[in-house]
Amino acid sequence: MVNKLFIILVIIGLPLSIIGSLFHWSEVIMFVVYCLTIVALAGFIGRATDSLSIVMGPRIGGLMNATFGNAVELIISIFSLKAGLIGIVLASLTGSVLGNLLFVAGLSFFIGGLKYKRQSFDIYNARHNAGLLIFAVLVAFVIPEVFSHTMNDQDTMTLSIGISVILIILYAAALVFKLVTHRGVYPNSGETEQTDREEETPEWGKGKAVIILAAATIAVAYVSENLVHTFHTVGDTFGWSELFIGVIIVAIVGNAAEHASAVIMAYKNKMEVAVEIAVGSTLQIAMFVAPVLVLLSLFFTTSMPLVFTWAELISMVMAILLMIMISVDGDSNWFDGLVLLAAYFIMGIGFYLL
Amino acid sequence: MVNKLFIILVIIGLPLSIIGSLFHWSEVIMFVVYCLTIVALAGFIGRATDSLSIVMGPRIGGLMNATFGNAVELIISIFSLKAGLIGIVLASLTGSVLGNLLFVAGLSFFIGGLKYKRQSFDIYNARHNAGLLIFAVLVAFVIPEVFSHTMNDQDTMTLSIGISVILIILYAAALVFKLVTHRGVYPNSGETEQTDREEETPEWGKGKAVIILAAATIAVAYVSENLVHTFHTVGDTFGWSELFIGVIIVAIVGNAAEHASAVIMAYKNKMEVAVEIAVGSTLQIAMFVAPVLVLLSLFFTTSMPLVFTWAELISMVMAILLMIMISVDGDSNWFDGLVLLAAYFIMGIGFYLL
Amino acid sequence: MVNKLFIILVIIGLPLSIIGSLFHWSEVIMFVVYCLTIVALAGFIGRATDSLSIVMGPRIGGLMNATFGNAVELIISIFSLKAGLIGIVLASLTGSVLGNLLFVAGLSFFIGGLKYKRQSFDIYNARHNAGLLIFAVLVAFVIPEVFSHTMNDQDTMTLSIGISVILIILYAAALVFKLVTHRGVYPNSGETEQTDREEETPEWGKGKAVIILAAATIAVAYVSENLVHTFHTVGDTFGWSELFIGVIIVAIVGNAAEHASAVIMAYKNKMEVAVEIAVGSTLQIAMFVAPVLVLLSLFFTTSMPLVFTWAELISMVMAILLMIMISVDGDSNWFDGLVLLAAYFIMGIGFYLL
Repeated sequence: MVNKLFIILVIIGLPLSIIGSLFHWSEVIMFVVYCLTIVALAGFIGRATDSLSIVMGPRIGGLMNATFGNAVELIISIFSLKAGLIGIVLASLTGSVLGNLLFVAGLSFFIGGLKYKRQSFDIYNARHNAGLLIFAVLVAFVIPEVFSHTMNDQDTMTLSIGISVILIILYAAALVFKLVTHRGVYPNSGETEQTDREEETPEWGKGKAVIILAAATIAVAYVSENLVHTFHTVGDTFGWSELFIGVIIVAIVGNAAEHASAVIMAYKNKMEVAVEIAVGSTLQIAMFVAPVLVLLSLFFTTSMPLVFTWAELISMVMAILLMIMISVDGDSNWFDGLVLLAAYFIMGIGFYLL
Repeated sequence: MVNKLFIILVIIGLPLSIIGSLFHWSEVIMFVVYCLTIVALAGFIGRATDSLSIVMGPRIGGLMNATFGNAVELIISIFSLKAGLIGIVLASLTGSVLGNLLFVAGLSFFIGGLKYKRQSFDIYNARHNAGLLIFAVLVAFVIPEVFSHTMNDQDTMTLSIGISVILIILYAAALVFKLVTHRGVYPNSGETEQTDREEETPEWGKGKAVIILAAATIAVAYVSENLVHTFHTVGDTFGWSELFIGVIIVAIVGNAAEHASAVIMAYKNKMEVAVEIAVGSTLQIAMFVAPVLVLLSLFFTTSMPLVFTWAELISMVMAILLMIMISVDGDSNWFDGLVLLAAYFIMGIGFYLL
Repeated sequence: MVNKLFIILVIIGLPLSIIGSLFHWSEVIMFVVYCLTIVALAGFIGRATDSLSIVMGPRIGGLMNATFGNAVELIISIFSLKAGLIGIVLASLTGSVLGNLLFVAGLSFFIGGLKYKRQSFDIYNARHNAGLLIFAVLVAFVIPEVFSHTMNDQDTMTLSIGISVILIILYAAALVFKLVTHRGVYPNSGETEQTDREEETPEWGKGKAVIILAAATIAVAYVSENLVHTFHTVGDTFGWSELFIGVIIVAIVGNAAEHASAVIMAYKNKMEVAVEIAVGSTLQIAMFVAPVLVLLSLFFTTSMPLVFTWAELISMVMAILLMIMISVDGDSNWFDGLVLLAAYFIMGIGFYLL
């Protein structure tokens, strides 16, 4: 049903996006059109990636998911970087982290918990991810902010580049650990998923999936470039700050399709998968998308240091500590979900008023 | 024995309070009289609440405990708000959190641990509470402080009101979770207590308990109003800052009776109950008393934003992380208690010198 | 083999240190000579302490290890204090904490993990230590920094002295807990070590060990005093800040011998011992060496408050949260090690650029 909605959205939205941008329709209306079109296109990218990852087998499939999983977010951010909107890029990275950890995981726990009294997921995986979350955000994001206070801009950029390289290496090492050296070493770790996967038949064949993936990616790129140029007008019209647009709007648009599937999985009691989507996506943003954007920014006029605002940083740190405390026992219920959602709303109000 | 002491204290203290305030006796002496009288009256309120909660059955009883448990603290704070002493109110909330988490829990672990090598309590409950502590303090208290730096006063107040409403809703949801939807779902969670409870006979009948509760509450209100007006003179006389009076003095006076019963429970090896008093009371302060005071302050001349000082906030955050690390394994000993007490003394010295 | 290298280093390094300092050789060359000589002498002190602790039995032996374990660090710091280099002392304390928690533990997990898929160690001990780490750094180190912002220098020093006394008392209490009241109370806690220990025969007899310990300590003191006076020239020559010399150089020189033995233990799958060296040494630095230096500084011209820079403090806090998350499950692998090492490198780059 969601899939049909996405087809309709793309069939209507994509032509409208092209026509609207050519004839300079109202930017506020076009903002809505662009957003909906991207949400639907992201759904196609997700399904194509899923199909390909089944066809390719668990290793290359895992690698594909790990690189294409946040393709939409990456594309929007690249066009924002090109337009010099560094503040929006950092804000949308923050928003993705908060959105995945608090909103998606929270909604999954809550909706799943309304149906089942207790839902459980693998604690080894939860702890492995908890360590990585702390590394990525509490070390790799916090250190440059704190150190940059007494550093000049060039040293801050050098530090940002160094940290970005280390993050990407560690992200690659995490894939080697999970898919190669320690596959199946920890009890249940990915066991059930793996078995599910191997039985699964891909939705689309290899050729069709590649074509859809390529076409949807190009379409997202086209629409994203137009979307980025509406931010200024939209912000002025609704009184939204750059920060709010990045943290809430861009983050939701870039991840909506993924969010939907996490909640559906939770409702089917496949908590393992729901948590993997939420936390895995957060790690991908923090350890792959963010550092790649820092390195890519070197090729644009304004280079982007890995320095978040204090409000963004504290929000991410607190979200991670909260998520770890709630998920580390491998057990969830509706109240756990409500706590995460409440934290998301508190931060949302904060960013709106900022 | 403690009960007899409290009766004597009330019989002597209450008339003295009335006479002293009418004849304007030395404020320093009256400060001591007011404090001791409130401690004793708080003991009566505690016993009346306990009796009523047994009579009313676990659900309404739990609700009663959750709302009247910190009645004294709430009353003193309302009179402080009325007198415009916002700094003291926030400081006394901080002091209650630190006092319950570090001093009461610490003393319980230490005293209990001198008698028993190892004492244990339910880890499910400990983890559930740990998540709530992180939510209440690391999210709901930290966010307004951090965001308020770049906000005007009105937006800070709007954010504070929003967070207060969310805190109260979540506190109500936590009661529903514990008393309705998930009662007995987690192993041992409240099991032993519940059984103890059902066997228990209330100390006082329903009528007597209601009368004592009403009378003691009115008396506390009367004495508290007078107490608040001595703060200024007492601070000047002893060189105590508003912060120190709030964090240490008001917090101890408001909670002394409750503290005593936690330590007694620990000594009887009922660690479950001792931890429940300490952590439950902290949660009540953070998720119910604090937001209610923010909302009530709107009816007074000076409204109170939910913005603690940086020193107060860091102290609470560190206290919570320490308490979580020490309690999350569901096992305590004398050394765990000593660590918590040492942290309390360090913070106490800090607030004294500030 | 390492032992032979250390003998050669001492035989060549010690005379060179004396001659070089007398004839005022190039300070940069002498800096290298002093460093290598101290590393080798530290090896002898370590072996002498080990031999003595076996001869003396577990209680007095444990006490010896707990006081002499960081003798070299303490001696270098005392001479730095004497020279008024307070910044370097605080930086080297930070460096020891980071070096032990991230570099030593990281390298142990990584090297051990290359040989064994999974290595495990006692979770009771890990949790006990985690509580102490949070107490020592998140409470005892964070509080004076945060509170000192609104305090005058004298009050800051009073607070530092108070905290130092509390830290030393708690460190002594931790030894009583571990060696007296709760020896063997927790499953496996020290069991295997203890048995290993009792079977062990000391490398050196009592008399020989005492003589070597005394001689090596005096030699370290002599070389350290000279080393401290080269910092200024070395910093200028290589463009290293006081902070970098303290955090990276002094910390590595003071702990190199100990570091080597931790990694060797990990390679032999004695993870328990490797973790004990890394975390035990951190606790000793934070709860014994640091407060002792604060108190000793009162006898020198410049007294040292327990106030780290914000960058040092955040680095230590983040290192501790990361280490706790990774070690609290009592299980390690090569990837856990890599994460810790990556955090160390990120902080290293930061301190280098600062």
